[in-house]
Amino acid sequence: MITLDKIKKAQTRLKGIIHHTPFSYAPILTQVCNNNIYLKKENLQTTGSFKLRGAFNKIASLSEEERNRGVVAASAGNHAGGVAFSAKYFNINSTIFMPEATPLTKVNGVKSYGAEVKLEGSNYDEAYEKAIKYAQTHNLTFVHPFNDDEVIAGQGSVALEILQQSKNLNVKLDAIVVPIGGGGLISGVASAIKSQKELYPNIKIIGVTSAGAPAMNKSYKAKSIINTKSVKTIADGIAVKNTDPHTLDLILELVDEIVEVEDKEIANAILLLVEKQKLVVEGAGAVGIAALLHKKIDMQNKNIAVLLSGGNIDVTMLSLIIEKGLVKSHRKLNLIVTLVDKPGSLRQLTDIFTKLEANIVQIGYDRNSTLLDFGDANVSISLETKGKEHQQTIKEEMLKYGYQFIEQM
Amino acid sequence: MITLDKIKKAQTRLKGIIHHTPFSYAPILTQVCNNNIYLKKENLQTTGSFKLRGAFNKIASLSEEERNRGVVAASAGNHAGGVAFSAKYFNINSTIFMPEATPLTKVNGVKSYGAEVKLEGSNYDEAYEKAIKYAQTHNLTFVHPFNDDEVIAGQGSVALEILQQSKNLNVKLDAIVVPIGGGGLISGVASAIKSQKELYPNIKIIGVTSAGAPAMNKSYKAKSIINTKSVKTIADGIAVKNTDPHTLDLILELVDEIVEVEDKEIANAILLLVEKQKLVVEGAGAVGIAALLHKKIDMQNKNIAVLLSGGNIDVTMLSLIIEKGLVKSHRKLNLIVTLVDKPGSLRQLTDIFTKLEANIVQIGYDRNSTLLDFGDANVSISLETKGKEHQQTIKEEMLKYGYQFIEQM
Repeated sequence: MITLDKIKKAQTRLKGIIHHTPFSYAPILTQVCNNNIYLKKENLQTTGSFKLRGAFNKIASLSEEERNRGVVAASAGNHAGGVAFSAKYFNINSTIFMPEATPLTKVNGVKSYGAEVKLEGSNYDEAYEKAIKYAQTHNLTFVHPFNDDEVIAGQGSVALEILQQSKNLNVKLDAIVVPIGGGGLISGVASAIKSQKELYPNIKIIGVTSAGAPAMNKSYKAKSIINTKSVKTIADGIAVKNTDPHTLDLILELVDEIVEVEDKEIANAILLLVEKQKLVVEGAGAVGIAALLHKKIDMQNKNIAVLLSGGNIDVTMLSLIIEKGLVKSHRKLNLIVTLVDKPGSLRQLTDIFTKLEANIVQIGYDRNSTLLDFGDANVSISLETKGKEHQQTIKEEMLKYGYQFIEQM
Repeated sequence: MITLDKIKKAQTRLKGIIHHTPFSYAPILTQVCNNNIYLKKENLQTTGSFKLRGAFNKIASLSEEERNRGVVAASAGNHAGGVAFSAKYFNINSTIFMPEATPLTKVNGVKSYGAEVKLEGSNYDEAYEKAIKYAQTHNLTFVHPFNDDEVIAGQGSVALEILQQSKNLNVKLDAIVVPIGGGGLISGVASAIKSQKELYPNIKIIGVTSAGAPAMNKSYKAKSIINTKSVKTIADGIAVKNTDPHTLDLILELVDEIVEVEDKEIANAILLLVEKQKLVVEGAGAVGIAALLHKKIDMQNKNIAVLLSGGNIDVTMLSLIIEKGLVKSHRKLNLIVTLVDKPGSLRQLTDIFTKLEANIVQIGYDRNSTLLDFGDANVSISLETKGKEHQQTIKEEMLKYGYQFIEQM
């Protein structure tokens, strides 16, 4: 494991640089998760993610001579922000390799910290290879996102905060739930806790992977390296294809359990965090709540700290998650209604919605479908509704008036 | 003004009940607002709003006999949550009057605290009248949302926290920016600051109203009560029609300036807070950032605390704000393209988008418009784009291939 000494040293270096992010009790999540939930809000960290901790600690640990030559990293996301921010702090050059298709907002985010961005390679692996080569050629330090003990020690500092903050709240923690991608964060957190086993003998470390990026989970269960050919998940921050041998060793040694969540479950968790906690959390950051919400972790009435690792979610994705969530929670109803194509026909239908206070948010009219009888028309309608019973009433009323319709999920 | 003593008493009563919400420096907002911005995150308060402070303090200030009879309130929003939560804490009955059309999620939110909900009246004013009558008939205490010194003192407690937290950060504040609806929050905040004028002689209190609910702003400028016939704003938490004489007196006495923001500006602020701060803030809570962002407050390089008063925004509204924001910030491009209606015609068009890496998110095809020449078809297309220059390139490429199109905002 990483020594407590190394992690405490990281904590000292990070003082005044990072936010001491809030750690607070979440009563509504406590109810729905059947455990006392405490949220560590690293989505509110500077750069929007915990990754700053490891990147800064690594760069701070370099000799002045090494550091002044500059640093290189490969990342399309949070690690890039952490490295760029830290390089700016030390007033040194940073070069970040990002895949060519990286969205402009992400590129600009990193550039805004003064980093040089090189768009190379069609995916992360290719950008990574280019970055390694570039660092070697130019004799620069490559800052790895997780296979580096200083990076891991930096991430571990968040666990020391959690221990202090739970003490301030008079809470004895039973578990800390941590997202797993490359495994740097959980390796740091687990090292910080398990190296103080005499003080905290009962705190379990539980990792959560996305089902669409299962390499570390599979490797953990097989106790040997298993890689995957591809990854597909809305939790892009933990979409890691290959298992890293070093973090796997640490995880096998220190982590008590790993569970897995599906994209749908992650989306539910993101929406819940928006609505009930007023927090924007990215997919990777929401896997812990997803796991607890969907009973993937076999605990009841325990004191559980959940690490919300970051908040850098694309707003288009957020908007999509909200839309799908509204349909699922019966606050939106999408219908395709077949009606006789004559004047007044649509009017009669909308009268029903008016009467039942269902707000029309979108409407489309098509009388050209080859699936229709001559004279009929299809109307696609999106309604804002008040819940399951309200939707039931609307559908019954439509049936009463003889309308044929199908519901779209 | 409300005495410091009363506000300190409220603070003592609230200890252990409310969250000591975070107060933190916001570097990106600092850049875009030309002032050092510190956010007081009352959107992360229990019940999602500062309103809990005033409601709890009022109920706590009642005699045991009064309190045990129960309390009544009228609100479709944050005040309802504050009263219901507080009543549950004291294990007393609460009856909340809400307008009949209140969305089910809001009704359920209040019910989840054990309150009895009465859906009465077609708007807030009617619900308010019914609530007053009900309280009189049943000899219950009506908890007013702002015209009550104990409520105002409770809201003022947030200012004492801001003073302490800014001291901890070694920041000498020049101003506190506060949303104004009924005026309870700013009356409390201004009382807390101005009653300590010898300690904080330079802290300005600046109020922000929504242009769609201008009663208090107009009254402040006219130095007498001006009411409005109707209100229309996305900041529903501060959509107050009539000026309250008591809070107007306090505001005239204590507030240094009031500025006004438009709905579009509020929407910009909400999106910025989501993207850059990872915070969900409701319209009323975002007016301060909207004012600073759009240079409504004539200050530069000052230390400004901005009170994010609440986070209870309807997610449908949030989704709409994101959508509009994406178009405005050139990350989404909506086009209607006229093309010759023959096989391969659409393919050639989509080839351009593929080549230029513009992601199609929605597509519609119509060859029945009477505005079209025979043989032509209209395609409506939504594209995910990487910024202004990217959109320019796409449009130029389409022109090069002879496509006619119009852009939809």
